[in-house]
Amino acid sequence: MAKFLTPQSEDFSKWYTEIVQKADLADYSPVRGCMVIKPYGYTLWERIRDELDRRFKATGHVNAYFPLFIPMSFLEKEKDHVEGFSPELAIVTHGGGQKLEEPLAVRPTSETIIGHMYAKWIQSYRDLPVLINQWANVVRWEMRTRLFLRTTEFLWQEGHTAHATEQEAIEETLRMLDVYTDFAVNEAAIPVIPGRKSESEKFAGAVASYTIEAMMKDGKALQAGTSHFLGQNFAKAFEIQFLDENNELQYAWTTSWGVSTRMVGAVVMTHGDDQGLVLPPHLAPIQVVIVPIWRKETERGAVMEAAAKVEQQLKPSIRVHLDRREGLSPGWKFNDWEMRGVPLRIELGPRDVAQGAVMVARRDMPGRSGKVQMSMEALETSIPDLLEQVQRAIYEKALAFRDAHIQDVETYEELKDAVETGFARAWWAGTSEDEARIKEEAKATIRCIPLDQPGGHGRCIFSGRPATEVAIFGRAY
Amino acid sequence: MAKFLTPQSEDFSKWYTEIVQKADLADYSPVRGCMVIKPYGYTLWERIRDELDRRFKATGHVNAYFPLFIPMSFLEKEKDHVEGFSPELAIVTHGGGQKLEEPLAVRPTSETIIGHMYAKWIQSYRDLPVLINQWANVVRWEMRTRLFLRTTEFLWQEGHTAHATEQEAIEETLRMLDVYTDFAVNEAAIPVIPGRKSESEKFAGAVASYTIEAMMKDGKALQAGTSHFLGQNFAKAFEIQFLDENNELQYAWTTSWGVSTRMVGAVVMTHGDDQGLVLPPHLAPIQVVIVPIWRKETERGAVMEAAAKVEQQLKPSIRVHLDRREGLSPGWKFNDWEMRGVPLRIELGPRDVAQGAVMVARRDMPGRSGKVQMSMEALETSIPDLLEQVQRAIYEKALAFRDAHIQDVETYEELKDAVETGFARAWWAGTSEDEARIKEEAKATIRCIPLDQPGGHGRCIFSGRPATEVAIFGRAY
Repeated sequence: MAKFLTPQSEDFSKWYTEIVQKADLADYSPVRGCMVIKPYGYTLWERIRDELDRRFKATGHVNAYFPLFIPMSFLEKEKDHVEGFSPELAIVTHGGGQKLEEPLAVRPTSETIIGHMYAKWIQSYRDLPVLINQWANVVRWEMRTRLFLRTTEFLWQEGHTAHATEQEAIEETLRMLDVYTDFAVNEAAIPVIPGRKSESEKFAGAVASYTIEAMMKDGKALQAGTSHFLGQNFAKAFEIQFLDENNELQYAWTTSWGVSTRMVGAVVMTHGDDQGLVLPPHLAPIQVVIVPIWRKETERGAVMEAAAKVEQQLKPSIRVHLDRREGLSPGWKFNDWEMRGVPLRIELGPRDVAQGAVMVARRDMPGRSGKVQMSMEALETSIPDLLEQVQRAIYEKALAFRDAHIQDVETYEELKDAVETGFARAWWAGTSEDEARIKEEAKATIRCIPLDQPGGHGRCIFSGRPATEVAIFGRAY
Repeated sequence: MAKFLTPQSEDFSKWYTEIVQKADLADYSPVRGCMVIKPYGYTLWERIRDELDRRFKATGHVNAYFPLFIPMSFLEKEKDHVEGFSPELAIVTHGGGQKLEEPLAVRPTSETIIGHMYAKWIQSYRDLPVLINQWANVVRWEMRTRLFLRTTEFLWQEGHTAHATEQEAIEETLRMLDVYTDFAVNEAAIPVIPGRKSESEKFAGAVASYTIEAMMKDGKALQAGTSHFLGQNFAKAFEIQFLDENNELQYAWTTSWGVSTRMVGAVVMTHGDDQGLVLPPHLAPIQVVIVPIWRKETERGAVMEAAAKVEQQLKPSIRVHLDRREGLSPGWKFNDWEMRGVPLRIELGPRDVAQGAVMVARRDMPGRSGKVQMSMEALETSIPDLLEQVQRAIYEKALAFRDAHIQDVETYEELKDAVETGFARAWWAGTSEDEARIKEEAKATIRCIPLDQPGGHGRCIFSGRPATEVAIFGRAY
């Protein structure tokens, strides 16, 4: 049999590009660096969006929408910000057949335009905090693009909050990092390391950036969400000022935080295998697929009737799909749905109908060990239970894989070796110059300084200076 | 008392602009023609989106996402299309610090880029129909803009479908017009006239355009949704071809249909009054507001406790908000929530607590006639019932208003007179030139040729030619 999909061990990067297209998650577009998110991929994104949005609302945030276009002069108001984003901008120079007086950038992120509006809306401490999130498309002109991971246009959410005190803004920054961690672990089944970015890796304009870092199946790191404490940088650039309780004028403290369609790539590369996608039940567009099986035409009626009944039975609580396609063998369908990562497959043939039972196959446990017979009557409770088992199992598997690929290293040589296959964890007290050297020599960066620290102290892996913190090093997407 | 809001009768247009800002639906942005949709307005849009999306999915559609940027050469492939949209384009000429080889238009609508992808995806009749919708932002460079009604950037959904036969595509076009009608009537409580656009008013590139036309409280028309039968125009321009069952190559038949953030403006101008917004319960971000009332500080504890209990009681099924703000009088709060259009207000004071009852005031029936006492115990059922009554009542009111402002006219003079205050309905068999004359002289256009026709025949109101159809004329937003 010809290989349908390049095995991960042969070329992980090729495997990724192939599966994203074969499973109909996304396609290349005729516009340089832009992708088309196909219905199956978009439904996965909708699930990610809904689960995040629910958490944002539960923590007191509301959604709003700000303009796509940002005057160039706005971006220039925060020095680090414009330096960071200038090389990546798409610029509108003409509108309605006329050359514009001032060119407009297509938003690469919205701190500046939102900062301008906040300055208008916020007058008094009574107006604070402002807790707004936006779901939007953004554009960053990328040289080398990869579907979902790095595209010129991508979809994301960007939270932008303003607070009366530094303490409150720092709390918000960390609260949203927690929300992202909770989402990654409990919905995407992706273990992540929450931590602080190093100086050289932080967001352009931030005082401190926080991240959740995930490990893909090739041992590389993927930044899956970020939360930034912006201090008063944008408040000063945009004059976001308020009268405090003593009637004194103060600058607000702001934060921003985002997760993008990149998360789809993270799901694919954390759980997928040589048969294709493995989707976490909480996010899977289809959680259960029913494949009807018959040999003789006379068996068909009873099988399809039972299959439709099972579909109706599960529909109220489960995202279920009955594969009614004609002219395709059950075996072909099994492979097809496996490739698309559907967590559970219900097989239903004449013998099953006679027994009032079905066979249920787990995507995450191929072969006989993942098959279990279930009574039709009990499906409403046994299927949701099994989905939860699968959700936990793929998280545990990813966690075990990740932990097996993190090495505590004591020498720079060990670090260089470790990042070939995973993460290196080491004491760190280096400078930005040291980081640049490591990046050049080991092709690895500090992914984060984990919030969860061992305590105590050691010697910096690179500079040998006394260190009180460990950092995670890895090669990154 | 100084007038808080310009009365509708004094200056409807001013009333609209004021209430949209005062009720925190939207704000002007520093970018020409672009608005900021504030949280309250965005939540209303989310409700519109969810109700439409539910209907799209129930009719077999799926969501996807296509690029924001469209190569200019794509737009030029369909002659009428590029002619129609060229004057309104925003053009990106630079990306990543370089001048682009081919300028990119920011999508004004996505028929062209989607047509290109469909040509790639559709090979056989088995691939049809393709039923895709996209939620996105689009940009049309407008000279005169008004919040929600006409903005350079707006949010919308655009459905794009491809079919094997002309008949199927026409059915789809009309099915989606039905979906829009159902949404407008049953969720937005807006009576609409579904009909066909005249030749001069149809979409650039369509064979036939259909619309739902609503009447605003100043008697003007607002096109609230459109559905286009595109024939094979885009299929031929983009080579969307498939092998039919006889293995012969055929061009597909396509449709497109859209509803935008304009719908928010329609809700405001259909139901609002001199006190502010009146929101339909099905779409209102807050359906019920609880205003606690006390005079003495000693009453406060019991009142707040009861109010919180009512909030918890309603929360599972109702979008309820307890106004906990300090330092504002109940009367001020009443006015504030009336202005924001919240359908029901629960007033809760010490006497109510003692009686185990609350007073409920209807936004759509100001004064004592709209007040009713309800037992606290029964709120879970009586509040949803009352919300449904309000939903029906505001629809009936809008319908009565509209019908009272449609005149069947028999002479051109009567038509000119009728469009000053509402719609004119008249026999029509004119030409595009005739329409242009009417537009110039009466400042009115054919809003639609209603699907629901009286039958029989008459003489064209303008040309005197024998006519078999009536048309609706009006001045439009």
